[in-house]
Amino acid sequence: MSYDAVELIRMKRDGDRLGDEAIEWLIRHYTDGDVTAEQMSAMAMAIFFRGLDLQELSTWTNAMIATGERMDFSSLSRPTVDKHSTGGVGDKITLPLAPLVAACGAAVPQLSGRGLGHTGGTLDKLEAIPGWRADLTNAEMLRQLEEVGAVICAAGSGLAPADKKLYALRDVTGTVESIPMISASIMSKKIAEGTAALVLDVKTGAGAFMKSYDESVALARTMVGLGQAAGVNTVALVTDMNTPLGRSAGNGVEVAESIEVLAGGGPSDVVELTLALAREMLACAGIDADPERALASGRAMDTWRAMIAAQGGDPDAPLPTARHTEVVAAEADGVIAGMDAMAVGLAAWRLGAGRAKQGDPVQAAAGVTWNASIGDRVAKGQPLFTLHTDTPERIDRAREALVDAVDYADQPLERGALVLARIDQP
Amino acid sequence: MSYDAVELIRMKRDGDRLGDEAIEWLIRHYTDGDVTAEQMSAMAMAIFFRGLDLQELSTWTNAMIATGERMDFSSLSRPTVDKHSTGGVGDKITLPLAPLVAACGAAVPQLSGRGLGHTGGTLDKLEAIPGWRADLTNAEMLRQLEEVGAVICAAGSGLAPADKKLYALRDVTGTVESIPMISASIMSKKIAEGTAALVLDVKTGAGAFMKSYDESVALARTMVGLGQAAGVNTVALVTDMNTPLGRSAGNGVEVAESIEVLAGGGPSDVVELTLALAREMLACAGIDADPERALASGRAMDTWRAMIAAQGGDPDAPLPTARHTEVVAAEADGVIAGMDAMAVGLAAWRLGAGRAKQGDPVQAAAGVTWNASIGDRVAKGQPLFTLHTDTPERIDRAREALVDAVDYADQPLERGALVLARIDQP
Repeated sequence: MSYDAVELIRMKRDGDRLGDEAIEWLIRHYTDGDVTAEQMSAMAMAIFFRGLDLQELSTWTNAMIATGERMDFSSLSRPTVDKHSTGGVGDKITLPLAPLVAACGAAVPQLSGRGLGHTGGTLDKLEAIPGWRADLTNAEMLRQLEEVGAVICAAGSGLAPADKKLYALRDVTGTVESIPMISASIMSKKIAEGTAALVLDVKTGAGAFMKSYDESVALARTMVGLGQAAGVNTVALVTDMNTPLGRSAGNGVEVAESIEVLAGGGPSDVVELTLALAREMLACAGIDADPERALASGRAMDTWRAMIAAQGGDPDAPLPTARHTEVVAAEADGVIAGMDAMAVGLAAWRLGAGRAKQGDPVQAAAGVTWNASIGDRVAKGQPLFTLHTDTPERIDRAREALVDAVDYADQPLERGALVLARIDQP
Repeated sequence: MSYDAVELIRMKRDGDRLGDEAIEWLIRHYTDGDVTAEQMSAMAMAIFFRGLDLQELSTWTNAMIATGERMDFSSLSRPTVDKHSTGGVGDKITLPLAPLVAACGAAVPQLSGRGLGHTGGTLDKLEAIPGWRADLTNAEMLRQLEEVGAVICAAGSGLAPADKKLYALRDVTGTVESIPMISASIMSKKIAEGTAALVLDVKTGAGAFMKSYDESVALARTMVGLGQAAGVNTVALVTDMNTPLGRSAGNGVEVAESIEVLAGGGPSDVVELTLALAREMLACAGIDADPERALASGRAMDTWRAMIAAQGGDPDAPLPTARHTEVVAAEADGVIAGMDAMAVGLAAWRLGAGRAKQGDPVQAAAGVTWNASIGDRVAKGQPLFTLHTDTPERIDRAREALVDAVDYADQPLERGALVLARIDQP
């Protein structure tokens, strides 16, 4: 069956449903170039306004998967379970979480990306470890999953190439912020990856991609629906991202903090979220194990070391340190009542932790660390943030991002709940 | 001042106004290629949903004009006045109208286009006249305007090149049907053309681009606002396009009908609309003359002959006739109560009068003629339509388009009003 791209754009624009065959035709011909970039960007904007219903979305997602290869982990002796975060500032949770869940008996195939914008990328963080490499063959990945249980590596370009092409287009055409298209993008890769179970960490708040709680819940429900429709046992946690996670945002600084957590210490919010996600992952994978004990016993750390070493990294090598650091003092006396995640993420990005455009290098040691968070009492003038960079000319603009980033209160207070909702149905 | 195209797309998408400098930046950089086709198509779709207010639209229109040349008719001894129709089936009005208004003392610079789709193009029609050529230099155009008073020729590519580029993009991205973008497209060319006065014929109904009366009025008001803001004395008539105009749709067949009108005959609706538009044009140009007398006296025909001859055409040469004709009979007894303009336009297009894509050739003799219209009594089986084409394999599909195209009534009735509204304010 053949379709006319202009006719399909006009249908969606005018609020009509697109049929299964029409969607399959569109995705296939966009991937091979017969449907042009300008046609697909008009379609993406029409979808921004008109949405896709669950049937359309499911077909769209499957059509993107069908443009590439599907991985197969069925030969593994361990049950597979993956996690995906929609991205937040200081969100290094994947680093301690993957080895922790693997230490409990699961296989965790974390196919990750690099960062664009203020939230950083898992691969960029791990590349701060001397010798570590992100690119594995499928055979290497399978062997590591069987032997170590956890792998964090670059998603091959063979998974859902239509999504890769479409995401790059949406990025330059102002059509990223669409719940159905975000859902299809994330879930096409996760379903193609072949994991049997999936836990989604949908961030909400000032430092997240989704600023509003309702939109975050809607995104979570849509993705859970897509995952379950594809036979992936999928659950989502909606978690707070008004405040940056832990005490660091950047690359090497987040690895260091993750190692603290694996060693049994680390900031309480990072520990709490890591355990909450680990429990969900183990439940989805049907594994009856206590992740708190795996952390306390050092088994998670052992798995981390094996995972890093298996990819050429030296788990004992010192992490790179920045050539320049500068301290930013507290602006007032009081209890920290708020810390603007977006401001912290922007500062880390400006220091060189992130990239302005695809392919730019990042600095392994760049980032922001802080030594107090919500509920802690500080005195005006006391060191609060430390800026890390190899290029000191970046410091002024990073410092600017942090002006007024912290709110101070007179009274003691506690940080609010980190996990705001658990979504297990569409 | 520099802007980020993605940021501007997101602003419009989210319902924010675009400032003057931002619009000027966008149009300039789209024209020179820095803003890409996929970005502009996303913007066009966002504008489809969000619109442009009059200030944005005026800036947008002026920015498109600023990408090209502006013509200057101020050296002419005659006042200039132009007409633009949004396009209808059988709409040959420009052909008798331009020489008629010129015969009354105006200069009528009709810079026209070629047809795409079911409505045909004025240049395609005139090219049925042996020897006639559409392409004139500016100097030839000026001389003809001064000496003959009327010129119908191809708009040079120098007028509003941004519009040319944007229109081609909108055509393939499902973003044509936007009142602000249609208005900007039409008015940028008309303002750049340098006419002092302009009468718009905004078609409404089944055979028109705008199907609904309210949308047609909105389009008319928007264009009148843009014209007046640019100092062009602009008025619009909203006219019926449920029924095709006259008794012919095609190329040479419409020239023949226009000549009938200039000779003092022709279908009453074509005469009525030609005179109504002529009166408006003369009023806008400040000329006190009676077009009915200019028609009756033969002066309009003299001007037509001079206009055709000035562009190399032979006004006495026989018009081409189609190699194949076929008669379609009336399907019922009764009074014709409706004739579907879209069906008739589609039939003419399928016979070879129009083109499927830019650059395709058209057949000079292809088209549809009919010998009865609204209010006329016909008998079942009596010849109603004649199909004209050089390629007989096209006849079956043209005939299909005409099935059920005519409604029959038992009682006598009159055709409704042709001019539905006169718009002289935004």
